[in-house]
Amino acid sequence: MFKEYDIIVVGAGHAGSEAAAAAANLGSSVLLITMNMAAIAQMSCNPAMGGIAKGQIVREIDALGGYSGIVTDHTMIQYRMLNKSKGPAMWSPRAQSDRVQFSIKWRQMLEQTPNLDFWQDTVIAITTADGRVNGVKTAMGQTIKARAVILTNGTFLNGIIHIGSKQFGGGRMGDRASTGITENLTDLGFESARLKTGTPVRVDGRTIDFSKLEEQKGDDTPGRFSFTNTPKLLRQRSCYLAYTDTRVHDTLRTGFDESPMYAGRIAGRGPRYCPSIEDKIDRFSDKNRHQLFVEPEGWDTVEYYINGFSSSLPDHVQYKALTQIPGFEQAKIFRPGYAIEYDYFPPYQLHYTLETRLVENLYFAGQINGTTGYEEAAAQGLMAGINAHLKLQEKPPFILQRSEAYIGVLIDDLITKGIDEPYRMFTSRAEYRILLRQDNADLRLTGISYKLGLASRERFDRVEMKRKAVAGSMAVLAKESVTPDQVNHILEQAGTAPISQKVKLDTILLRPQISLNQLISGLPFLKDHFDHFGDLAEELIEETEILVKYQGYIEKEQELAQRLSKFENMPLKPDFDYSALSSLSFEAREKLSKIRPATIGQASRINGVSPADISVLVVFLSK
Amino acid sequence: MFKEYDIIVVGAGHAGSEAAAAAANLGSSVLLITMNMAAIAQMSCNPAMGGIAKGQIVREIDALGGYSGIVTDHTMIQYRMLNKSKGPAMWSPRAQSDRVQFSIKWRQMLEQTPNLDFWQDTVIAITTADGRVNGVKTAMGQTIKARAVILTNGTFLNGIIHIGSKQFGGGRMGDRASTGITENLTDLGFESARLKTGTPVRVDGRTIDFSKLEEQKGDDTPGRFSFTNTPKLLRQRSCYLAYTDTRVHDTLRTGFDESPMYAGRIAGRGPRYCPSIEDKIDRFSDKNRHQLFVEPEGWDTVEYYINGFSSSLPDHVQYKALTQIPGFEQAKIFRPGYAIEYDYFPPYQLHYTLETRLVENLYFAGQINGTTGYEEAAAQGLMAGINAHLKLQEKPPFILQRSEAYIGVLIDDLITKGIDEPYRMFTSRAEYRILLRQDNADLRLTGISYKLGLASRERFDRVEMKRKAVAGSMAVLAKESVTPDQVNHILEQAGTAPISQKVKLDTILLRPQISLNQLISGLPFLKDHFDHFGDLAEELIEETEILVKYQGYIEKEQELAQRLSKFENMPLKPDFDYSALSSLSFEAREKLSKIRPATIGQASRINGVSPADISVLVVFLSK
Repeated sequence: MFKEYDIIVVGAGHAGSEAAAAAANLGSSVLLITMNMAAIAQMSCNPAMGGIAKGQIVREIDALGGYSGIVTDHTMIQYRMLNKSKGPAMWSPRAQSDRVQFSIKWRQMLEQTPNLDFWQDTVIAITTADGRVNGVKTAMGQTIKARAVILTNGTFLNGIIHIGSKQFGGGRMGDRASTGITENLTDLGFESARLKTGTPVRVDGRTIDFSKLEEQKGDDTPGRFSFTNTPKLLRQRSCYLAYTDTRVHDTLRTGFDESPMYAGRIAGRGPRYCPSIEDKIDRFSDKNRHQLFVEPEGWDTVEYYINGFSSSLPDHVQYKALTQIPGFEQAKIFRPGYAIEYDYFPPYQLHYTLETRLVENLYFAGQINGTTGYEEAAAQGLMAGINAHLKLQEKPPFILQRSEAYIGVLIDDLITKGIDEPYRMFTSRAEYRILLRQDNADLRLTGISYKLGLASRERFDRVEMKRKAVAGSMAVLAKESVTPDQVNHILEQAGTAPISQKVKLDTILLRPQISLNQLISGLPFLKDHFDHFGDLAEELIEETEILVKYQGYIEKEQELAQRLSKFENMPLKPDFDYSALSSLSFEAREKLSKIRPATIGQASRINGVSPADISVLVVFLSK
Repeated sequence: MFKEYDIIVVGAGHAGSEAAAAAANLGSSVLLITMNMAAIAQMSCNPAMGGIAKGQIVREIDALGGYSGIVTDHTMIQYRMLNKSKGPAMWSPRAQSDRVQFSIKWRQMLEQTPNLDFWQDTVIAITTADGRVNGVKTAMGQTIKARAVILTNGTFLNGIIHIGSKQFGGGRMGDRASTGITENLTDLGFESARLKTGTPVRVDGRTIDFSKLEEQKGDDTPGRFSFTNTPKLLRQRSCYLAYTDTRVHDTLRTGFDESPMYAGRIAGRGPRYCPSIEDKIDRFSDKNRHQLFVEPEGWDTVEYYINGFSSSLPDHVQYKALTQIPGFEQAKIFRPGYAIEYDYFPPYQLHYTLETRLVENLYFAGQINGTTGYEEAAAQGLMAGINAHLKLQEKPPFILQRSEAYIGVLIDDLITKGIDEPYRMFTSRAEYRILLRQDNADLRLTGISYKLGLASRERFDRVEMKRKAVAGSMAVLAKESVTPDQVNHILEQAGTAPISQKVKLDTILLRPQISLNQLISGLPFLKDHFDHFGDLAEELIEETEILVKYQGYIEKEQELAQRLSKFENMPLKPDFDYSALSSLSFEAREKLSKIRPATIGQASRINGVSPADISVLVVFLSK
């Protein structure tokens, strides 16, 4: 009934969908197996993509030829560039999505992907021979052969949902859990552990008094996630801000006795940076209020997501507390928040390609590796899909460096630092964040992906055109001087000192008060230059301005990255006998033997491996 | 956390959605409880609404103020009027739907309905006091109070899915079954039994060779289901016809040993008129081929539904047989067909309002009563929703006669004839089918519904305007004569004999070769008359033509209906002691005691109650 596939992808969430698309687009024959074809790429938690550091990841996925950015652009209902008041390293795009349309669009994109087949079923085990995966077994009784398998099981592995003292099996509210895979993998020698995550109450918007909330509109000129020609957002829906108060907190505390967290019924750790409301009032007991984001779930639905109010307290406590929040006095809910506990596999068990160390050609991506977030999952799926394909083609692996992409930071962190709570990306996790901006993801990554055969020629040509246009524009700004007559009215209007003699344009642009757009609007020859680029002009102006204004910082980080990369990429043999190197600290020997980093760079980022240990290794290897 | 509701509706399929909308629109406070708010009104089987007799039901639902017709019009991808070559009693509209958009639109309509709240959870029991329902208990631990409860559990009650020798619990592929309610109801004294239904394989359209299939386009001028101002269909997707052959049948037969039906693993009877492919080749073993309808699942998906190929044979047998069908040689499938077995409650346990006899204010609608089909389910939901509201308001019940609506036939059949296989509507089930046409559903029913407070004033005014316009148009046709000069070119063109002297227009229209549109296009004064009605003209012309052409038949049926209705509505007391009436046959005494018909009409349609028995009853009652 089934041919032997190159790759089977198990699960069609954000990780599985990107994995399937990437491998199929590269030319592998792929079978995507999902429990429910009506729930492909379902947003199980908040109806949003992007945000701080996550928005950069979505743009990187897009630059590499993934689909998350395109799907988001087609189905978003609001777009905001966060942190616009800070430097461009911090700018992070974020979209509110139409939850249902997002899933529909993803399915449509996947259905139009060549080499990609679908099967609705539940995988209960992988099959192996000689330490290599060779297929899967399903609940419906199928045995399907494949040369590689990518597991992206999300929160479904032995998922248990908790609401107060009640608990029941489930992979997501309304969906069954998946059983069998964890047991199958632990039999094969894998170590598994438990994590938990949570989601808030869903509220009927008809019962919210929005006049008591603070409106948060989308950007006036909304941008896009994809570097392709996706549609621009013409209308938007607003979000709203609401606040808890001490009365709400007091009510929530009445449920602590019945909380599955405090009563010890949940063993798994939750995401520190996406805590439940009870965590927040417990850990920050001096705070009198917490901010909540009231997010619409789509264009035409009355359902709202109460971001920040995630909880596994008893439903009646959640409800009572909710109705004490100004604006929610009459609130009716569609369902309570809940926590979900699930199995994951600590990611030290992976190679940098996301292939498992124990079973060849078996890959893990997404929450199964202990991460949280759609974007983190999608990024891993993309990388697993690419690497599974490359391995089958006997091509070198595709590994992104920490200085190349947030995706590089993500995977390096997972494998070298390990996980003891759900891992979420932040800009602070990146050493080179002025290099890893959202605006230059295409310049950083599309060329690499084109060489791999994933990004299309069209994408590649566009990026190279942009690269040349940026260089050309920077040259113009470096070459052309303007006279006081030409430019002083602009400077005055911007509240900065006039010039008294000819000055180069790039020097003027270095002034923080002056934007490139201001110069363009006042200098016809500059306007002509940029107008010439048509559709590309907007991006080009943004990119050129950033490169001019932040040139100093960028160059400094580039130098640092290069210097470190000498050691960074110094290889460590997988069978290196650390125990024999007695000048290493005991802890370093232990950690290095367990994690087996591929390079000095990776070794340097392992908790417990000190700079002194790194010196020992470098000296030894240089001999 | 919850107020006491007037009505709780359990299940948000076609029955539950109509029930909730009707009761809420009438003014009851309603809570709709569904296991999954992302699957409201999901089409679990074929992506289509309407068809023979079912299309009439959808129009009746619409005329009464239900939502099924409106949702269908908004989300259909193809429209056809079936049986157009037969008389208008047989005309049946049918639409292919976009499966996903149908569900989205239903949810949108429900969200915009006042008095209607939502709760995502699984009901595990009803609660009662003094023989009256007063709420439900849920899997999440809620006890929610209500004055009435409508159960619309579809195929979810102890659902078991069968594929060959494999079987697993589920309410629908990918969804959990619902447990607890059957046991709860049998404890209360209800009788339950098992039925089964099935669904075919879903195929990846990219792997079908459509050049080997026969295209079936939609109508050139597609109509609509709703009598309201829903959008007209501007583009359509085609269906395709395919055929099995003896080789396919031979392959299917190889799976009979493993078939859950033939091996006796399924106790429940399946729908006789929607049989599985194995039933068809078994029962009609002399037929060399069976027709299949290859139906697209939506505007933008590659998924196709293979109508007519429903099966619970082992998946590899289904697959092998499928690939032997011309056009499907390379077919890949998304999932196999399967059979599902579920609990239902034989509907003799109901009053004509769909309230149960055992528990006051508890209503059943849809597959729980043993029917099959979205339309049959939706109709029952609507009637249960209306009647639950009326009961709580202490108003008289709303019961449709067999001469008023297919919905009347449906409910009367269910209660008096009983069920031993899934009940599906046919035109042959209606005695008065020339009265129960799709075109006049509004004229038959909107006035009644308006009086109930469900159909809007706007709907009512439109129908009354149409009624007057029809009467006026018929008067014109009855009054105006035309000369040979005026009309003979039309008659000749239509291939019918010319006239030699003035003749009344209605007399000419009685000729089967002549349509009203032909007369209109040839007679300017007639064109002016109809043009005058603008948007209404199209409907008006259809209605007027039918009434003129079929006036004789219509009047005959109306007379018959009136004659029978004298006895039809002669009431029978619920506590009437049939056993004391010794002149009744033994079987009649037994059946009447069990079913307890409300009227002589109902009694007359009970299997085993003879005309002689009816005479005995009439004579006794007339005393």
